[in-house]
Amino acid sequence: MGISVETFFLDPHAQGTLQAQIRQMIAEGILSGRFRQGERLPSTRRLATHLGISRITVSLAYTELQANDYLTSRGRSGHFVSPNAPEPPPAPPTRGTEDAVDWSRALGRHYTGGDTPGRPQDWARFRYPFIYGQADPTLFDHANWRLCALQALGQKDFAALTTDYYDQDDPRLVEFIARHTLPRRGIAARPEEILITLGAQNALWLTAQILLTQRRRAAIEDPCYYGLRDILTQSRCHLTPLAVDRDGLPPEAIPPRTDVIFTTPSHQCPTSATMPLARREALLARARDLGALIVEDDYEFEMSFLTAPSPALKSLDTDGRVIYVGSFSKSIFPGLRLGYLVGPEPFIREARALRSLVLRHPPGHIMRTAAYFLSLGHYDALIGRIRNALRDRRAVMAQAIADHGLTIAGRGAHGGSSFWMQTPRGVDTERLAETLRPRGVLIEPGRPFFHGADRPRDFYRLAYSSIPADRISDGVAEIAGTLQTMTGDTP
Amino acid sequence: MGISVETFFLDPHAQGTLQAQIRQMIAEGILSGRFRQGERLPSTRRLATHLGISRITVSLAYTELQANDYLTSRGRSGHFVSPNAPEPPPAPPTRGTEDAVDWSRALGRHYTGGDTPGRPQDWARFRYPFIYGQADPTLFDHANWRLCALQALGQKDFAALTTDYYDQDDPRLVEFIARHTLPRRGIAARPEEILITLGAQNALWLTAQILLTQRRRAAIEDPCYYGLRDILTQSRCHLTPLAVDRDGLPPEAIPPRTDVIFTTPSHQCPTSATMPLARREALLARARDLGALIVEDDYEFEMSFLTAPSPALKSLDTDGRVIYVGSFSKSIFPGLRLGYLVGPEPFIREARALRSLVLRHPPGHIMRTAAYFLSLGHYDALIGRIRNALRDRRAVMAQAIADHGLTIAGRGAHGGSSFWMQTPRGVDTERLAETLRPRGVLIEPGRPFFHGADRPRDFYRLAYSSIPADRISDGVAEIAGTLQTMTGDTP
Repeated sequence: MGISVETFFLDPHAQGTLQAQIRQMIAEGILSGRFRQGERLPSTRRLATHLGISRITVSLAYTELQANDYLTSRGRSGHFVSPNAPEPPPAPPTRGTEDAVDWSRALGRHYTGGDTPGRPQDWARFRYPFIYGQADPTLFDHANWRLCALQALGQKDFAALTTDYYDQDDPRLVEFIARHTLPRRGIAARPEEILITLGAQNALWLTAQILLTQRRRAAIEDPCYYGLRDILTQSRCHLTPLAVDRDGLPPEAIPPRTDVIFTTPSHQCPTSATMPLARREALLARARDLGALIVEDDYEFEMSFLTAPSPALKSLDTDGRVIYVGSFSKSIFPGLRLGYLVGPEPFIREARALRSLVLRHPPGHIMRTAAYFLSLGHYDALIGRIRNALRDRRAVMAQAIADHGLTIAGRGAHGGSSFWMQTPRGVDTERLAETLRPRGVLIEPGRPFFHGADRPRDFYRLAYSSIPADRISDGVAEIAGTLQTMTGDTP
Repeated sequence: MGISVETFFLDPHAQGTLQAQIRQMIAEGILSGRFRQGERLPSTRRLATHLGISRITVSLAYTELQANDYLTSRGRSGHFVSPNAPEPPPAPPTRGTEDAVDWSRALGRHYTGGDTPGRPQDWARFRYPFIYGQADPTLFDHANWRLCALQALGQKDFAALTTDYYDQDDPRLVEFIARHTLPRRGIAARPEEILITLGAQNALWLTAQILLTQRRRAAIEDPCYYGLRDILTQSRCHLTPLAVDRDGLPPEAIPPRTDVIFTTPSHQCPTSATMPLARREALLARARDLGALIVEDDYEFEMSFLTAPSPALKSLDTDGRVIYVGSFSKSIFPGLRLGYLVGPEPFIREARALRSLVLRHPPGHIMRTAAYFLSLGHYDALIGRIRNALRDRRAVMAQAIADHGLTIAGRGAHGGSSFWMQTPRGVDTERLAETLRPRGVLIEPGRPFFHGADRPRDFYRLAYSSIPADRISDGVAEIAGTLQTMTGDTP
């Protein structure tokens, strides 16, 4: 691709002749890395017209740059950045004058420094990626997703693709969720009770902004999804972490004056605990007594392959007290960024207004593609395939864990895609992860899931959603071997 | 598509026989509109297995429902919702128990009630849509967008499509913006100084959250983009609206103790005024004196077809004092939801952390498709085509406005896609819009752009980005005729 004539401007305050200015512009473009070796410059005629100067001035500048080997000429094809042109320095120097602004003062609020850990972008290059929440290319139905995307790119869907929805959603996707997705969770909802979000993270964030203030109190599970804790910390509400047990969040532990309870009943994150029916009813009763609302993050409900999933907590809610968070980012792929909120109309109205303020609406093409993928039945087929693969992998994993004597601290009753693990003798799992990484093994240290100053360091999560079954055993062996070395045991 | 077996649950607290419960589930599905006429029910075998009950129970329930004409049987094809089944009521009754929650108390913060006006989703059905910011299907390069999307859906880009980018962006899109887009605005920026956003709205919102608090003061243009005013009102900062003149925002009017100045120098929204170079320099000097930052919304810079666009305000900024907001949603299509922020690293770091908290990252597929569309040169071709069309339409529009004696209150020096208009004798443009709508004419009343209690009602915006050239004249004639009727004039 050629260098566009529109990237050239004459600086009204520039010193020197026009010819020198043009030479300088081009040399700077090359030295800053904007213009690369082999790229074609605008013709002398085009550049002269664009800048409103004479063509001979541009020609002379080009000739001079050629003499200095910044440019080469290829006869009638024009001028190109020379293969011998100076290389830009690896990191272009910062403009020194930026200190003119005192950024420590200029930033009104800080958002960096949350608990969400940095995670490797290049996970797919590792041989044993026991990481959570990335799509497995061998399971994803890429061909049909592509066909659905193509259909959503068609002339018939031009408006769905291009239109400014203002604060609205794709009605097809909403209808599908209302008629087909939510009934599987035992939930009956009208379109006015549903809002499409940019993934579950966005749904949780919107919810926190609406329900919480600095004067309100939220109860969260401990451990819990760090992304949620970051959201609540930023909201500056009072935060009560409640230790979960093998049945999830204990309702009796929720203190008085709690306004909102955040919970993952179907599949506690990260311990995988499933809350039994009796406790779900006790939780609803406790919320009713306290006048509190419940936010149910029903992530991964599709991944129930051992037994049928229990209906959502929301399905037991006769008060309109439960706000339900669903996601397609886990079950289709995370880069999709598509989730939804289900709640009473007064809540959804506020969530819609806030979403509109923050980002207007999710991209139309994404919503329509998902609507096709769901309604043509590809989603169900995909989920079926994922369930089968996860069932197999879980069996292999459970066997390998048993064979190598590793300790499971939590596992899902219905299935899921990970085990919650504990190391012997309090081995620090962040050190463990660092030691395993050069050996091609990725694990998730557990500390970021916990709350408070003195967080347990001996837990970790082993997910099997992105690792092929035939590598699990070797990967677990590597973990076990490394653990033995770290504790000084011999195998 | 058949009704999925997974939408059936046995209620643990249900009364009556199993057979009665199944009859009730199906009748309720039909009456609530979830199951529609002609849809196939699960086979008796599948439903029985799923619920863990005997097949004969399901068969008896189906037979009873057939007798009541809820279902029909088509021999071996199974059971279907009968064409004579009762229709669901037009609006299903709300569950009465939802009053259990006092929503006026439960909502911690309200986001509804902003200034952003409701706009018609069905604008394309109007013959004279003088509305702003929707894509024109006759100009958009749908074929090449589709090809780029298809490429971004390919096996080679599987990771770009599906991956969880955590807090990162598509590096290809960022690189293109740094190397090719920003230089056209005279801006040099490194990738660390760029963040991809969900459109310009999202960029402005992120900026406000980082730079403003309840103790800080923002200066905005009056009139200005209502979406921005809604963002700043929600941030609860002190807000100083400054009346713009024909050169845009007057720098000398910016009061002391201003922390952030929001401006649209290239193309004032909505008056279209272009800020001259001398005033841009005065604005930067004023900001330096005050120790204030400037947020430059450079919307529509691509639509300069009368003269070359002036470089961005940001290009004159040697202090790192200007934060630049760009958007592809206007120039490609609004449903895309893709924009970007350019600013010093300490600011971009915070914006990245906040974006990650709120929504993680823009969908990967959208970013990669845009990167292809830009780098293959389709974007430049599209912009060229749009410019030509807008140039023609603007000429037709200016002529029609002159012929019918309408009053232009503001127009862009470089081009743009709208005129800012004023009615004679203070005609209320909201009434004017209502009167024109049944005649197939859509205009944008000006009141939502203004600040304060006593907002002018006699301005309106006439955009020519979505109306074909050959309808402009008749549309303007309709506006002029209606105005004459409303003011009691005869033509």
